[in-house]
Parts: sequence; C-alpha cells; structure tokens
Amino acid sequence: MAAPELEQLIGLLSKLPALGPRSARRAVLSLLKQKESKFAPLVASMQTVLERVQPCPVCGNMDTSTPCSVCSDLKRDSSIVCVVQDVADLWALERAGVFKGVYHVLGGVLSALDGVGPDELKIQELIERITTKNVKEIILALPASVEGQTTVHYLSDKLKDFDVNISTLSRGVPVGGELDYLDDGTLQLAFKARRNV
Amino acid sequence: MAAPELEQLIGLLSKLPALGPRSARRAVLSLLKQKESKFAPLVASMQTVLERVQPCPVCGNMDTSTPCSVCSDLKRDSSIVCVVQDVADLWALERAGVFKGVYHVLGGVLSALDGVGPDELKIQELIERITTKNVKEIILALPASVEGQTTVHYLSDKLKDFDVNISTLSRGVPVGGELDYLDDGTLQLAFKARRNV
Repeated sequence: MAAPELEQLIGLLSKLPALGPRSARRAVLSLLKQKESKFAPLVASMQTVLERVQPCPVCGNMDTSTPCSVCSDLKRDSSIVCVVQDVADLWALERAGVFKGVYHVLGGVLSALDGVGPDELKIQELIERITTKNVKEIILALPASVEGQTTVHYLSDKLKDFDVNISTLSRGVPVGGELDYLDDGTLQLAFKARRNV
Repeated sequence: MAAPELEQLIGLLSKLPALGPRSARRAVLSLLKQKESKFAPLVASMQTVLERVQPCPVCGNMDTSTPCSVCSDLKRDSSIVCVVQDVADLWALERAGVFKGVYHVLGGVLSALDGVGPDELKIQELIERITTKNVKEIILALPASVEGQTTVHYLSDKLKDFDVNISTLSRGVPVGGELDYLDDGTLQLAFKARRNV
C-alpha cells in the first residue's frame, strides 16, 4: 500500500468528475515524476485559483474580478441576458464568441429525479435582475434535454408578465451533422422547423 | 473566456493522463463549487505530497520515508527482488498482498519505438543490488507485451552469470476469464502451458 499521504491525495482526486481511483493513481505518479516542471506549478496554480476566484454576485460566472469581466465590460449590452445552466456553458458560449450581452447562471435545471426544484435555482435572482435592471431580452440557452426544456417552459411562464422578449436557441441539424448519425427526435424537429431557401 | 488564472490551471490539469481540456474544466468548476469541502483539502493534500514524497533510493518506490516502507520492513525477505516496470505495478502487487519480498522499479521497458534503451532503465542499479546485497531470487513481473517480454529476455541474458534464480510470472487464462473473450495469443499460450489436474 502507498503512504497514507498518497492514499489521501488519490482518494481526493478520484472524487473529481472524469477521474477514477486508477486514473487518479496514474495522475499522481506522473506528477511525482516531474515535480519541478509539473507538480509544483500545478499546486501553485491551484492555490491561486482557490484564493482568488469567486462567483460573480451579478451573473454567477467564476472569475477573479467582482463583478466578473463579462458583467463589468461596458462594451457588452446588459439589456440582453442569456440564461445558462452552468458556468461551463457560459464559457462555451464565450469561446464561440457569438454573444455580446450578459449572462445569468441558473445553477442547474429543474429535475424531479435529482430533487432540483425552482428554489434550488437562481430564478428569484433572475426576476430581480429583470425588475431592477433595464433588461429587454432573455435568451434561454438551456440544454435540449427533457429537464432543460421543462425549465424553459417553467421560466417562460414565470416571466410572461414582465415586459421582456423571451427566446430559446434554435433546434435542428448541427453544423457538419450527417443525417445518418442523428437521432429521430432531432430529425423530426429539423423537419418540422424547415425553412424556405 | 475564463480568467487567465483559471485558463492556466485548466491547461496544467489537462496535461495529466486521463484528463483532457473538457474534463479539466469540469473538474475545476466542480472544485470551485465546493471550495471548503473539496478544493482546500485537495490543495493541502497536494502540497504535503509534493513536499514529503520522494522516490526510494533503494527500489524506486514513491514514499514519505527513506528508504520506503517496503524496503525498511524487516519482516520482508530482502533476498527476493521483484522487478516491475513502474511504481503503479508495485502498488498493484502490494494491494494484492501476494508478495513478501522487496521490489526494484525499472522505470519502463525497452522500446525501440519510444527510444527507451537499457541506459534509460535502472538495470545497472539492479545489477549493483545483486552483487552487493545477498539477492537469491529475481522475479521479472513485467508486462506481457512485446516490449515487456523483450525486456525479460534482455534482463535474463544480462543476469545469467550471477548466482540468482530468475523467474517470470505465469501466463494463461485470468481468473474469471471467459475463453470466448480472450485473444488468440493468450489461448495459444494457455494451451501450450496446460497442466495435468
């Protein structure tokens, strides 16, 4: 058996998503082989992130500045709010660089199975933003899953009395998508929502 | 884009085996969500391991004590040395608890493709252990791959002039192995090395 310090680290690492006990062991051994070039910089970088990164009080993004760099960017249109499930989705949209408004991280989607109700999500905070800030448009960029779409319906119902335009992302064949590989649901949707060229 | 500190951490994590950029991002976000309960303990544990774990100067095992807990255990038979490719293999044998001798971590196997020659492995150190310590038996517990078996042949040739018994692990059908799922090579070996019951 490895030293207790090592077993503890492997145990902590193996609780991360995408790492099991076996890959955690391999990761630790690979770090120990390159202490100066890999292990020490990783520990220092983790320490910095642990100390300096906070959730943005406005949108829920994770950043070193408060409010986050997106919320404090004056070139962005704060009247358009894109609602996402998670910070990972916010980062994905930022990487794509298609959206120049601001975000609202919901912190999940409604799920009876996982016991996530409206109170577990940042819905009240969203309504507050709409009533106190000058929000004109809400884009619900939630997953195309059953839970995601349930949340879309719940939110659009909840927000219908406010003077905001509510939209969701379009659904259909993704770029580069071979029809042969797509599921029936996507094909059906793509047919229903077909457009004249 | 996320803050530079976050991007740096994700970059460092995604260089670990078994983690890509996507799973590194998910791991970092999951840590940031549970700073006190997960992130801080992980950073502290990494710091401890970074500072205190060293390769054992005798066998190459990774441990907090020098020599390692295996080498300094007086109940173990230091006249039997089990040669393994890597520390992960040493730990696997220790978990199985089948071996009560000591180890020698080779640090890899001979591979023309990866440019690993005899000088890259701890072969000279093994010969020194045999000549200076009272070693009676060497068990070559190397992988059953082409490179592993090449290394077995090289080592048994290199060690044949010393007064030591050299053995390798047996080959055949693993415990619980369905014949239907085994490769032809294993089946062939298992037939060749069949034993009377």
